[in-house]
Amino acid sequence: MRFDQIKSGMVIEGGRRTVTEAEIIEFATRYDPQWFHTDPVRARDSRWKGLISSGWMTCSIAMELAVKSVLATSESIGSPGVEQLKWLNPVRPGDELELRMEVLETRHSRSGAVGIVKWRWMLTTQAAVQVLELTATSLFQIR
Amino acid sequence: MRFDQIKSGMVIEGGRRTVTEAEIIEFATRYDPQWFHTDPVRARDSRWKGLISSGWMTCSIAMELAVKSVLATSESIGSPGVEQLKWLNPVRPGDELELRMEVLETRHSRSGAVGIVKWRWMLTTQAAVQVLELTATSLFQIR
Repeated sequence: MRFDQIKSGMVIEGGRRTVTEAEIIEFATRYDPQWFHTDPVRARDSRWKGLISSGWMTCSIAMELAVKSVLATSESIGSPGVEQLKWLNPVRPGDELELRMEVLETRHSRSGAVGIVKWRWMLTTQAAVQVLELTATSLFQIR
Repeated sequence: MRFDQIKSGMVIEGGRRTVTEAEIIEFATRYDPQWFHTDPVRARDSRWKGLISSGWMTCSIAMELAVKSVLATSESIGSPGVEQLKWLNPVRPGDELELRMEVLETRHSRSGAVGIVKWRWMLTTQAAVQVLELTATSLFQIR
């Protein structure tokens, strides 16, 4: 999707994919080795009642879906940051996560060379539980 | 470090670690397959003048350092989210990233059972270039 096809008010469906216990443990072992992300037995008897994903893995899955659905075929050149990143509920093994992107604003940089999109990403499970919400700014090289 | 040792105004050094080209490509191939994260040749001739890390990998490295330095030995039970996540400069192969955490506020939940820390995390390269800043809230089960 090209920058000039992304319009304020648009809602873009980003597709879905399933999370496995092996991926949760592998990611967390490397980047977020806290027991509720790496130890299914200890996690089962805790307030979390089972293993949950690192929040950074949840964000990474949202990114994966955004790249596949929109950014890979765009003029994307990166992002300066994110506002209001909320991990609303835990992500668990077997969850199928679905991404939805609401375009809040599009504009051009002062020079006109860069397109700027502000959009809200929401990740929801197969049970309609919202697990992630964030507002990202993305940049596109348009000439 | 236990919750009751974390005090407002404290600055905590989170240690450092080096990023490799292989890790940048591996992470991005899975979660953020944009050419400036996966294709060193195309990236070299672009505005980025070389491969750069996925911003989500940069965040994950900050998390890794925070877990190793503070959270692993704490009563950490997770986080509801992050404010003002800024990718200030690109992270490149060979960069040595250093984490610094400034404690902005600590308090107890209304029940008294959960400790809440709001802190600013900053990741800087060996050349003193700031690459990441975010303000996170972390939760601790204190009884």
